[in-house]
Amino acid sequence: MITNKWEKISEKVEKIGYKTVHHKSFKMPDGLVGEFTTWGKEGAHNAGVIAVTKNLQVVIARQFRPGPEIMMDEIPGGGVENGEDLQDAALRELREETGYITNGKITYLGSALREAYSNETSHYFLALDCELSHGQELDDSEHVEVVLISVDELLYNAKNAKMTDAVAVLMAYDELKEVTHE
Amino acid sequence: MITNKWEKISEKVEKIGYKTVHHKSFKMPDGLVGEFTTWGKEGAHNAGVIAVTKNLQVVIARQFRPGPEIMMDEIPGGGVENGEDLQDAALRELREETGYITNGKITYLGSALREAYSNETSHYFLALDCELSHGQELDDSEHVEVVLISVDELLYNAKNAKMTDAVAVLMAYDELKEVTHE
Repeated sequence: MITNKWEKISEKVEKIGYKTVHHKSFKMPDGLVGEFTTWGKEGAHNAGVIAVTKNLQVVIARQFRPGPEIMMDEIPGGGVENGEDLQDAALRELREETGYITNGKITYLGSALREAYSNETSHYFLALDCELSHGQELDDSEHVEVVLISVDELLYNAKNAKMTDAVAVLMAYDELKEVTHE
Repeated sequence: MITNKWEKISEKVEKIGYKTVHHKSFKMPDGLVGEFTTWGKEGAHNAGVIAVTKNLQVVIARQFRPGPEIMMDEIPGGGVENGEDLQDAALRELREETGYITNGKITYLGSALREAYSNETSHYFLALDCELSHGQELDDSEHVEVVLISVDELLYNAKNAKMTDAVAVLMAYDELKEVTHE
């Protein structure tokens, strides 16, 4: 076993453009020092939601993504604010990005660590009986088109690089199968 | 539709520690300029493999991850070299990180764009009938413990933040169910 044989010996935080970088060095199991560059605020959390309407359609926040430079069919989500409850954050992002709210069951699906060199944790929820309540409340740099897709399309998108939070679909897989075949 | 209304107007590449950062600015659909900081080499590809033995165990490269700072049960994988075939890269990483090779069917599962602000693409394969061939061939900063787990454990790990490439498990879900229930 090599567990717990890594010991952090230094960490330097740097702001690069709009992102935070942590330069970390560790004493590795062989006693040598390894230096690594990691991305994102230490301890930051993101929350996203698979929002399903009464008609079993999934509420998607279609938007341009600056990394891949393509439009992607994302589930609503974003950063959790200081002191904010994870579920409150997911439902706030749903409301702001799409104008939808939920009147039904909300399930915490779980958390994911999506990148070996990212310091951030993603949390996912499934919300049923969602409905349009009002318009979007977008930030200046947000341009989001709200589209409704089927659960089958969501599954296709998750498997085919059309959304970044594909792991949420794996977490919701069994429950989505259940609600769509009732 | 807001597709195709984003126009790149500048891109500056910077080396930050061991990572590459691209500062990109785009003319957005409303005519304003948006500036974004993205992570990873433009056009870089990673390849990973869900490697299953004849006894239906999954070959895992257990390793410390500098972002989350925990041990994770990763599928073997890494960067595709210049001009290297994606499948060759995945099988090379399998061989180097674990000493395992495949004698069976190899399936391309698909690609994923895992982060909105990452410039890299991940590709995944499923390889059956894998067996231990020789020892590991690790780089200096790699410390990998090879462990064998069940397909059920792989599924659990993917849903519970124990591995970063969880989307690969979604892509392989139906085929894994099929091979484990033959």
